[in-house]
Amino acid sequence: MDSISFDNFTCPLPIPNGQQVTIGHGSGGTLTKNLINSVFYEHFHNPILDQGNDFAELSSESKRIITATDGHVVDPIFFPGGDIGKLAVAGTVNDISMSGAIPRYLTASFIIEEGFPMKDLVQIAHSMQACAQEAKVQIVAGDTKVVEKGKADKIFISTAGVGFFEKDLQIDGSRAENGDAVILSGTMGDHGIAVLAARNELGFTTTVLSDTAPMNNMIQSGINASPHIHVMRDPTRGGVATTLNEIAIQSQVNIILDETALPVNKQVQAACDILGFDPLYVANEGKVLFITPEKEAQLLLDALHAHPYGKKATVIGRVEKTDNRPMVLMRTRIGGTRIVDMLSGAMLPRIC
Amino acid sequence: MDSISFDNFTCPLPIPNGQQVTIGHGSGGTLTKNLINSVFYEHFHNPILDQGNDFAELSSESKRIITATDGHVVDPIFFPGGDIGKLAVAGTVNDISMSGAIPRYLTASFIIEEGFPMKDLVQIAHSMQACAQEAKVQIVAGDTKVVEKGKADKIFISTAGVGFFEKDLQIDGSRAENGDAVILSGTMGDHGIAVLAARNELGFTTTVLSDTAPMNNMIQSGINASPHIHVMRDPTRGGVATTLNEIAIQSQVNIILDETALPVNKQVQAACDILGFDPLYVANEGKVLFITPEKEAQLLLDALHAHPYGKKATVIGRVEKTDNRPMVLMRTRIGGTRIVDMLSGAMLPRIC
Repeated sequence: MDSISFDNFTCPLPIPNGQQVTIGHGSGGTLTKNLINSVFYEHFHNPILDQGNDFAELSSESKRIITATDGHVVDPIFFPGGDIGKLAVAGTVNDISMSGAIPRYLTASFIIEEGFPMKDLVQIAHSMQACAQEAKVQIVAGDTKVVEKGKADKIFISTAGVGFFEKDLQIDGSRAENGDAVILSGTMGDHGIAVLAARNELGFTTTVLSDTAPMNNMIQSGINASPHIHVMRDPTRGGVATTLNEIAIQSQVNIILDETALPVNKQVQAACDILGFDPLYVANEGKVLFITPEKEAQLLLDALHAHPYGKKATVIGRVEKTDNRPMVLMRTRIGGTRIVDMLSGAMLPRIC
Repeated sequence: MDSISFDNFTCPLPIPNGQQVTIGHGSGGTLTKNLINSVFYEHFHNPILDQGNDFAELSSESKRIITATDGHVVDPIFFPGGDIGKLAVAGTVNDISMSGAIPRYLTASFIIEEGFPMKDLVQIAHSMQACAQEAKVQIVAGDTKVVEKGKADKIFISTAGVGFFEKDLQIDGSRAENGDAVILSGTMGDHGIAVLAARNELGFTTTVLSDTAPMNNMIQSGINASPHIHVMRDPTRGGVATTLNEIAIQSQVNIILDETALPVNKQVQAACDILGFDPLYVANEGKVLFITPEKEAQLLLDALHAHPYGKKATVIGRVEKTDNRPMVLMRTRIGGTRIVDMLSGAMLPRIC
C-alpha cells in the first residue's frame, strides 16, 4: 500500500494513472475507478468507503444530527502551514464542531482541472487523510469531476459532513447574552497573511504559518470545562469582526471589544500595517470565538490554554444588551469607542 | 418575497446586488450575506436554514443514516429538460435514494465565476428549489465562493445530503444474485444526447430532453411493490454498461443483457448512430437500474409503470452466477453473445 512516499511528498515511485489528471479520469469509467482506487481509496480507505457504493451508510449516534458544507478554492493550493486538502477537511470539521457536535463523517467532491499533476493530487489526498485522522473523522463518500484545461483553477474541493452529540448542548449564534465573555482561542489573521505571502503579494518575506487545523478536539475540552457555552463560531472569511457582527445580529446584542486584548502575531501585525489591513478582518482557519457566561470564562480559558491550539486564548470582549440596532463596538487603546462593521466588499479573494 | 418573477425566468424586476456576481460576493462580508439572503434564502428558506448558522441541525429519523455527495460541472449549464441546479439536487437525491433511504436534507456548495449573471443564479436557485420540493428535501446549509473571471467555467455546484430509512432494507451493489431480474426504469442516453445537442455538437437538431429528475418517489413505490430489491443504482456517467459492470464486480456475478430489450428513444438512437456512440454508455440522470428477485419482477414493473418516470420500465437482463471474472454479456439481436465492458477513457466530458 505504501509504494509512494508521502513523507517528503516527492513521490519518487511511479504515479498511478500517469503524471496528470486527464478528462478521461472524470468520465465515470475505468480511468475514474483507477484514479479513485489509487489516490482516494488508498488514502481514505475505511469500511464504509470500501463498500464502493455511491452512498455511505452511517449509524446514528444521537437523535440530533449536525451537517455542514464548505467549498474550497484557495489560491495557491499549497501554502505555509497547510494546503487545500487540509483546509477542506478542517473547514467542515470546524463548521460542524461549532454546534458542539462531534464531527464523525465527511464526504468530498473534487473538481479538477485537466492536466493537474497527479503527485499534487496524491499530496492533497495525503493531507486530507492526515487532517481527518487528527480530527477522528472518516471520509466515507466522494465524487470526482474533471474539467477542460482553463475551465477551473487547478482543483476545487467541497466537503460536507455529519456529526452527533454526546451531550445535550444548545450552542448557536442566537444565544449570546448580556454579560457573556467573548473569548478568542488565539491570534488573528495568520491564515490570511500566510496565503498572501504564498502568493508573493506581500512584497516582503515572512515566516507566518496558516493556522489551518481541526478545532474539534480543543472544543470538546472547552465544552467539558465550560458546559454552558452560548455561542461558538470560527472567524474565517471576513475575520473576527465579521463573525462577531453576525453573532451580534443573530443574538440582538452589542459586543464590546477591548482593543488592547486582541491577540495578533507580531509578523501578522507588521504585514497588516504595511498592507493597510486590519487583522480583525483577516481570515483565520484554526481559531474559535467562544461566547460563554462570565462565571465560566476562566474555566474555559484554562482548558483552552492546556490545548496546543488554544495556548494564546484570551478574553477579547463582552456582550451587552441593546435596545437599538445590534453592533460590534471597540474600546480603543486611547479610551475612545468605535463601531466595528462587517466586512463590506472584497478584501482577500480566494483565501479559503 | 416574490419581487422577482420566476415563472418565466425573465426577472423583469431589479436583480439583487447588481447584474453580476463579483469577487466581493465571495468575501464572507456584507455582499456575501446579501447574495445569500436575496438569492439562496429567498428560494430555499426553511426553519433550519433560516437559523443562519454555518451548520444545520437535523433530527435523526432512523438509526441508519445515508449520506452521499455529487459535484456538478455540466456544460452548458442550461440544457433542454434541466439545468445545473436541477441536476445538483436530483444527483444527490438519487445517490441517497439508491440505498432505499428517503433523502431529507441537502447542503449545497457553490463555486461561481466572477461576472456570472445574477439572473442565471436566480434561475438556478429556482430550479434547485423546484426539484427539492418535488423530492421533498430541504436545502439546509450552503457555502458560496467566487473565483476570478477565467478561473472557473460559470458555476460549479457540489451537493451532499442525508437520508433515513422507513423500512429495514438492505440494498447495495454487492447483493445481486443468480436468477435476479435486471430492470431499467426507462430509455437510455436521453441526458447525454440532450446536453450534446445543447452544445451544438450534434450537427443536426433534435428535440431530446434530458431525463434529469429526482427518482426517490418512484423508488419508494418500487420498494413497496418489491420489498426484496437487491440492488438499485442510477446509470449516470458511463451509462448503463459501466454501472452494470460495477455491480457485476461488487456482487461477483455475470449480468446477461438482452439487446432486443434495451429501451432507447428513437431520436437518441439516431443521434448515437450518427455519432458512433452506443446508448449503453451514454449518461442518464433520471433512470434507475433495479436488480430484484425474479418472482418480484412483475410487481416491481407494475409499480414503475404506474409512475410518470417509470412508464417505459422493462426487464433488460438477468443475473447469472460465475466462477470466473465477473462480466456483463449481451445476447445480441442476431443470436450471438458479446462482452459489454466498462467505459474506458473519456466519452462525453462535463455531462453532469
